[in-house]
Amino acid sequence: MSNCIIAQSGGPSAVINATMAGIVKANQLSPLYEHVYGGLNGIEGILQERFVDLTNMSERENRLLQQTPSCALGSCRYKLKRDNEEDYQKMIAIMDKYQIETMFYIGGNDSMDTVAALSEYAVSHQIANHRFIGCPKTIDNDLVETDHCPGFGSAAKFIATTALQCWYDINAYPSSRTEVFILETMGRDAGWLAASACLSGKVDILIVPEEPFDKERFLNRVRNIISLRSKCFVAVSEGARYIDGSYLSSGVARSELFGHTVLGGAGKVLEQMILDAGIASRCKVQDLSIAQRCHATEQSYTDVTESFQLGMCAHMRSSDPSFTGKMVGLKRMPAEKYTVSCFAIDAEKVANFVRNFPSQWLLPDYGGISEEAIKYMLPLIQGIPEIIYDESGLPAYVKPYYLVR
Amino acid sequence: MSNCIIAQSGGPSAVINATMAGIVKANQLSPLYEHVYGGLNGIEGILQERFVDLTNMSERENRLLQQTPSCALGSCRYKLKRDNEEDYQKMIAIMDKYQIETMFYIGGNDSMDTVAALSEYAVSHQIANHRFIGCPKTIDNDLVETDHCPGFGSAAKFIATTALQCWYDINAYPSSRTEVFILETMGRDAGWLAASACLSGKVDILIVPEEPFDKERFLNRVRNIISLRSKCFVAVSEGARYIDGSYLSSGVARSELFGHTVLGGAGKVLEQMILDAGIASRCKVQDLSIAQRCHATEQSYTDVTESFQLGMCAHMRSSDPSFTGKMVGLKRMPAEKYTVSCFAIDAEKVANFVRNFPSQWLLPDYGGISEEAIKYMLPLIQGIPEIIYDESGLPAYVKPYYLVR
Repeated sequence: MSNCIIAQSGGPSAVINATMAGIVKANQLSPLYEHVYGGLNGIEGILQERFVDLTNMSERENRLLQQTPSCALGSCRYKLKRDNEEDYQKMIAIMDKYQIETMFYIGGNDSMDTVAALSEYAVSHQIANHRFIGCPKTIDNDLVETDHCPGFGSAAKFIATTALQCWYDINAYPSSRTEVFILETMGRDAGWLAASACLSGKVDILIVPEEPFDKERFLNRVRNIISLRSKCFVAVSEGARYIDGSYLSSGVARSELFGHTVLGGAGKVLEQMILDAGIASRCKVQDLSIAQRCHATEQSYTDVTESFQLGMCAHMRSSDPSFTGKMVGLKRMPAEKYTVSCFAIDAEKVANFVRNFPSQWLLPDYGGISEEAIKYMLPLIQGIPEIIYDESGLPAYVKPYYLVR
Repeated sequence: MSNCIIAQSGGPSAVINATMAGIVKANQLSPLYEHVYGGLNGIEGILQERFVDLTNMSERENRLLQQTPSCALGSCRYKLKRDNEEDYQKMIAIMDKYQIETMFYIGGNDSMDTVAALSEYAVSHQIANHRFIGCPKTIDNDLVETDHCPGFGSAAKFIATTALQCWYDINAYPSSRTEVFILETMGRDAGWLAASACLSGKVDILIVPEEPFDKERFLNRVRNIISLRSKCFVAVSEGARYIDGSYLSSGVARSELFGHTVLGGAGKVLEQMILDAGIASRCKVQDLSIAQRCHATEQSYTDVTESFQLGMCAHMRSSDPSFTGKMVGLKRMPAEKYTVSCFAIDAEKVANFVRNFPSQWLLPDYGGISEEAIKYMLPLIQGIPEIIYDESGLPAYVKPYYLVR
């Protein structure tokens, strides 16, 4: 009996470990592999033969793993270059050495490219019995083909919840105090995360990379809303950009920090515009930074469950010797109640593409998102799994495998 | 039968509404007052006679109120000036008009000063049957006399949880990537909130207002930690300051209309120092901004329960006609297992004082907090109440009373 290996790559998420837990569990239910290895720090660690054995993970550890944020195996940003044959040869040699037949790679865009490249190499060199399978994850929700990406639902839930809570906070002050609140989310190229703030029903203005930013149009909107109800709520993607393609935050020089103006990301730039224009007496920016991708105590139940099931699906499909160079994904079924099935697609059809937030889902004049967009996103944030806490009062997490145990 | 009124003031918290819910509930269990009014936007709204009637609040609304963040009655920063007799006369006249015998004021430092001032005025002018009672709340935990402040436990829990989750996130990358992560919390004068990040067990360096900031000492610490384990975790209070008393963020602070300086930016200043010194290849700042005080989906069960009970206590004690100018507070009992009782103290003994984080609880060289400090804080973050969600997948909150219903 041969072995398999799991690795993780790219930016962490709140549910990326659930996919890994699903693979491990599937092999316990139906052992296709003698050993399920974990490769540490993605491709980078595999090339260094840094492995752990996950085969006999306890039920409790599996459960805790699903609620542990970030990459328990460690992440990397290493991308196999197609002209660097040495890495490919080494990879195959290491797989042979450990009798690894299947590699599961959990990641985003770049990881799917790695899956496609490795698979292509093996096939073109007629190396049999080596399968490379991708499992999607990205809070950005910007992978094509799959209905949505594991990780997005939990990030969207945290963002929408925080938006709702911040709205309650800023609105508690009397109307004599005019205030603009700006919530900045991740999303360099796609506006899915910023758009998810609109699920709170409290966002007045939404700025995403998909719609060019026009300063005057924006300030007019803010001015109108402030005069109407004294408080204005803005959600902005870090990747918001002007019509010439330059980022709002691109002019931000770190050396300015000790001057009188501090500009951080896009939110800080908007803040400065509003204060300069004298529209509101106060402006606050909340940049959700990395909390939005690692806040695993409020995972979407739907998200963590689907993430786990995608892992199981990938494992089960790998029993087919020809199943390589594929990514498993989620397909929304045409049913009245939300339901998904898993499917598989060539990883190269996913690699290096970006799925933007549909422009037809954006309301005019930075007015937020359409009913259709809400209908798409709402099912993804449903439910809260029961979180196990330890005696410290904090959530119980597995110790990362990349640490010496 | 006379009436009572509740009002809220100062910065919101995740559990301030629980105190109000406790007062309402206590009056349903043992009616001392015919009507329990809510005064909107603190003293400011009471002087404008903006009231709502809370007497017959349903059990469900009471339950939702306890999990609703921010001030459901609206807040204010209005502070009665002791030389402005007009406000005092107006206040008494309005209370007489509505037959209000008791006013419960939920707030921090300034609110306790208002309670003391109003009570003093009534007593010195021999105005009988007017009682003014303060209920403490502040995420800053900087009120004297009470063992701790409702609101702190929930903020501390969110901060410690986020610290733990962010640690998992930044550590997922290979050790070849050196990185400093900086978590900035609120805390203008006291370091309680930044210190609570240490409950995660993951903070390498803690910078609080109580210990003067020394740039070289700080950078040396960061350098040592980075060379040791490639990642360094820093927690910093917004109110961190140099030995001359100037804020780290003083170059970036903006002044606010209401007398307080708006801080924020200490983390960015540290980031710049680290990058300038070339200590790490990456630096990230997460400023928890207002999310730390309104993140009510992970309230500490202990905190929300104590907050509710303090409201009940204040109501029950108000049956004593001489009970005025007092603040109710929490006393930790000398028992093996954490337990508190409620007590009362003159509000003027609390007003305008600040309880700092004890310097003997700080480890040398910005090394975090002592075991004793952890022993003090840990009980305050215990437990998660069951949160009610609505069909949108987001938490169900009461509609703020300050909005026209």
